[in-house]
Amino acid sequence: MIGSNGGVILSRMSAFVRRVPDGDNRERLVCADCGFVAYENPKIVVGAVVVSDEKVLMCRRAINPRKGFWTLPAGYMELGETAHEGAAREALEEAGAEIAIEGLLGVFSIARIGQVQMIFRARFANAGEPRFEAGEESLEVALFSWETIPWTEIAFPSVHWALQAWRSAGAGPLGQPVGNPPADPRGTHPMSGSAGAQA
Amino acid sequence: MIGSNGGVILSRMSAFVRRVPDGDNRERLVCADCGFVAYENPKIVVGAVVVSDEKVLMCRRAINPRKGFWTLPAGYMELGETAHEGAAREALEEAGAEIAIEGLLGVFSIARIGQVQMIFRARFANAGEPRFEAGEESLEVALFSWETIPWTEIAFPSVHWALQAWRSAGAGPLGQPVGNPPADPRGTHPMSGSAGAQA
Repeated sequence: MIGSNGGVILSRMSAFVRRVPDGDNRERLVCADCGFVAYENPKIVVGAVVVSDEKVLMCRRAINPRKGFWTLPAGYMELGETAHEGAAREALEEAGAEIAIEGLLGVFSIARIGQVQMIFRARFANAGEPRFEAGEESLEVALFSWETIPWTEIAFPSVHWALQAWRSAGAGPLGQPVGNPPADPRGTHPMSGSAGAQA
Repeated sequence: MIGSNGGVILSRMSAFVRRVPDGDNRERLVCADCGFVAYENPKIVVGAVVVSDEKVLMCRRAINPRKGFWTLPAGYMELGETAHEGAAREALEEAGAEIAIEGLLGVFSIARIGQVQMIFRARFANAGEPRFEAGEESLEVALFSWETIPWTEIAFPSVHWALQAWRSAGAGPLGQPVGNPPADPRGTHPMSGSAGAQA
């Protein structure tokens, strides 16, 4: 079982209770038997706006949530890797693309589901001959100019946010990464964005 | 029990085994009884370089690791909050300081211990009369000019990195956040920084 926040719900064989551990100030899952505290914290999603000749690489999701809708190559960061490495791994796994990361385009807090999303701007490692193909979690992968992005079939609000950040930054040097939009400063709206997409 | 990466080690009453779940590509802790997958992912540390009149707010740690050494107000981000809110909460909890966040100063991956550290630049909410006091996890809290920072008593390498980022950025608008230094691009060195501090 996975909670709506992606956190751990422990096996029913364990004797975990919810209480404030010594020296802490909020309730945690604590084993009544041995005192072990199972901390649940937000997870990091790493991804990239991969650009080639003013077009952006997008993936049509082969899995739920939002199967059939378009997203950026992105996913949960894993133990043992850096944020850059995680974003590059996701681009390879989901879009068959080897990328070179240029900088941090946006950092979005999605408090509703316990996520921080770090979205980088990247180019293809072989810029002259961009290669990509659908990975296991993608139905198809394609490059879109701004005008041809499938705006009515975007998977998540943060995909809109990242694409807007790319549009605003242009191709030049990156400045401060953008954050959540004023309309959803904490990432708590289940529905937002022009397509009414659901995170 | 907490693993060295901060991850969850489940109760000995559970029947968890390490295997690759269907549709995944790496080993996870899976309950042999019910199939529940206990994902372990990096955790987010949020903190701030809080500046007043060209001085930076630092805390001397009252707890291990590195008890007695100096650090920035920072700690694990919690479920239900944004990264900004987490950094502000830590400044309040550890240094009794109400802060206003200005932007993202540095993002550091510490692959060795499964962390991403997001360090913001901030000022005191009441800039004219900065207030601070040691919280439960601090022995003392103080403002230091660059020259008076206790360089030989810094708790962690990333404190050095964040302070250097502050120095480089100055008081002006913030650009791209800095990342790991070239000497430790993945955050894998247990010892680094001028004080030989240990993360």
